[in-house]
Amino acid sequence: MSKEFPYTLTPPSKIINEVSRIANISIEEECIETNQKLLSRYSSKDVVAVMDIPPYDRALVDGYACRSQDILYASAESPVVLKLVDKDVINEGECKELNTGDKVPQGADIVVPREYTLRNEDNVLVYNSLPPNYGIGLRGEDIRKGEVIIRRGERIRPWHIALASAQGFKCIYVYKLPRAIVFSTGMELLEPGEPYRDGMIYDSTRRLVLSYLKWMGFDVSDGGRVSDDIYMIEKMFRKLLSEYDIIFSTGGTSIGERDYTVKALKRLKPEYIVHGFAIKPGRPGAIAVVNGKIIIALSGFPVAALSELDLVFKPLIEKLLNIRIDYPKIMGRLTRRIPSQPGITELYRVRIWIQNGEHFIEPLRLTGSGVLSTLIKGNAFLIVPEDSTGFEEGEKVEVHLVSW
Amino acid sequence: MSKEFPYTLTPPSKIINEVSRIANISIEEECIETNQKLLSRYSSKDVVAVMDIPPYDRALVDGYACRSQDILYASAESPVVLKLVDKDVINEGECKELNTGDKVPQGADIVVPREYTLRNEDNVLVYNSLPPNYGIGLRGEDIRKGEVIIRRGERIRPWHIALASAQGFKCIYVYKLPRAIVFSTGMELLEPGEPYRDGMIYDSTRRLVLSYLKWMGFDVSDGGRVSDDIYMIEKMFRKLLSEYDIIFSTGGTSIGERDYTVKALKRLKPEYIVHGFAIKPGRPGAIAVVNGKIIIALSGFPVAALSELDLVFKPLIEKLLNIRIDYPKIMGRLTRRIPSQPGITELYRVRIWIQNGEHFIEPLRLTGSGVLSTLIKGNAFLIVPEDSTGFEEGEKVEVHLVSW
Repeated sequence: MSKEFPYTLTPPSKIINEVSRIANISIEEECIETNQKLLSRYSSKDVVAVMDIPPYDRALVDGYACRSQDILYASAESPVVLKLVDKDVINEGECKELNTGDKVPQGADIVVPREYTLRNEDNVLVYNSLPPNYGIGLRGEDIRKGEVIIRRGERIRPWHIALASAQGFKCIYVYKLPRAIVFSTGMELLEPGEPYRDGMIYDSTRRLVLSYLKWMGFDVSDGGRVSDDIYMIEKMFRKLLSEYDIIFSTGGTSIGERDYTVKALKRLKPEYIVHGFAIKPGRPGAIAVVNGKIIIALSGFPVAALSELDLVFKPLIEKLLNIRIDYPKIMGRLTRRIPSQPGITELYRVRIWIQNGEHFIEPLRLTGSGVLSTLIKGNAFLIVPEDSTGFEEGEKVEVHLVSW
Repeated sequence: MSKEFPYTLTPPSKIINEVSRIANISIEEECIETNQKLLSRYSSKDVVAVMDIPPYDRALVDGYACRSQDILYASAESPVVLKLVDKDVINEGECKELNTGDKVPQGADIVVPREYTLRNEDNVLVYNSLPPNYGIGLRGEDIRKGEVIIRRGERIRPWHIALASAQGFKCIYVYKLPRAIVFSTGMELLEPGEPYRDGMIYDSTRRLVLSYLKWMGFDVSDGGRVSDDIYMIEKMFRKLLSEYDIIFSTGGTSIGERDYTVKALKRLKPEYIVHGFAIKPGRPGAIAVVNGKIIIALSGFPVAALSELDLVFKPLIEKLLNIRIDYPKIMGRLTRRIPSQPGITELYRVRIWIQNGEHFIEPLRLTGSGVLSTLIKGNAFLIVPEDSTGFEEGEKVEVHLVSW
């Protein structure tokens, strides 16, 4: 029961190619200290290990470093007696006391755990024979100098920070994401917190877009609301073009008489403009490149706007910055058939659940691009590609996990 | 090849019960505006819908609202003529022009899309018969008043923000996570950025813990480093106890002669203390309750510390605050056998991958609690429960997805 959208619908792949070719937005990097501030940023360069980790052979136990051949015949009945020394080089018949993590002295190839020994003033009795390298973490066994520890475009996780720290890096290069702003259009909109008035709706789409972009890592600004007035919307776009690289509007993208957003967009004389995406939901969206900057006019319906973000904006920004914002991909069996129209990329909200060790994927039945409840009832997106006629019941499909 | 830890090992479940019973940390809530700042916080109350969404029957298309019985026999050959009015109530033979999203006037039960009509001054010709409710989004079809839209303890996602906004909520109650701080101990530690010196290692564990806690949502402070000196460590703990609810240290938890952290902890006269967790890696960890505050002495090895956080601290804070920090759970088939010692909860780093529509789970072979590279090579944790003797090759197991 969705509206017929009369314009030509352009596939996301074509839009992404054209916009990324024409757009000219500043893509900057910055070196961020290897602490919490680095978390969830996107690396802008491969990070290569500059040293072996561990940087030297180190003790994995508290005990005594010695030569394996010296204790080859040690046993409970006939312990070997070693001379306790405190030197950087161990010779035949000698041992050195080490704590866990200490550097193993030259000449030693074993650290005998303290519980296999008895200390007797300046001598140590060893009661066990052990294989070479016992009790030792070998230099470079974790990371070798020259290995890539963070790939370009990867989102920084706690362990990336740990590895970069272990390499002694003070900071790591990451992208400054383009400056983005979102404003909404619509006379029927109320701001949350305002008293409710009949015939109005609270603006949820702008907040959905703002928080979705923040969740992707954008430091996105809230541009507030503009009236359904072609000149006000045009003025807003012009003002924001001087300050932001990416501008999002919500609402007014359809073909009704109050749908002024796309008309305003056209008055900016864009280098490139598409009105009508070959996606479902989200067909009425528009995208334009104006003075090299990107303007995306999203639908006013929240789920349509989310679909436009996910199927058009996300792959576009991934391509422009060479980053990966991927959700985890999971396979599961469809609990019912999903038909799809070829030529249209479709985004289904689905619920994935486990039964008897199998993943099942249930497409949520609710229709309508405004239906927010499917987003809290679902936990994943199923994307039906452009060329597909859909999937059968019981078929194994891949979904993108967005929450669980 | 890990060190024998001679103390009694206490299972996480027992620790969590005891600490949550004895600890007395301030658990505060705050009402955060329904915008980006709310993202990734944990709700402290069920949020219940106060109105139906949509709040009224609304047009899903641009067109004309009318009574279904009036256009029952409309067709291309014999269109029905309706009188165009602009009133809040529609009577027999009348219609009202609506844009998508507009409130449907009383009396009307259809919105005829504009493309099925022809407008002729004050009349509208309708060329199609349509079923009742066509073109209408019914009041409450998305959310009904009284429905829970955000459950207590849930982590706030973009769609929760959208739904709360759509309900007109200015703010939502979320937890202030307890104030936490992390400091490290160890004479062998260098700070990233310092020139490398032989026999030293760069401190990665403190940064791993800081970023892991930030990723959980804590506004965690960096307490820097303290020397391996029992009095300095004790002094640090005492100072931090007056300012923080949860204090983490890293290093010095084993039984070597330079392991002062647990000794310092005992000097604080805790109400409760455990040294030795029945987990692997991470056995040498310690936890204490001092004046109601929680102190967790983590291992100095990064992966052991992470395991202590994941198997002891995460379930503890989930219980204390009644929140869910869960990772997505995925099933897959083990590519090789994993043996496990009953009585010990084990955390394996694994790599999950998809082949021919099946998930396979490969336990990473590298051993040692200091081996950071398994964290960037893997993408999930397999937790072998306390009572299990492990899993067989080919067995289906559940893992926790931590990245992809």
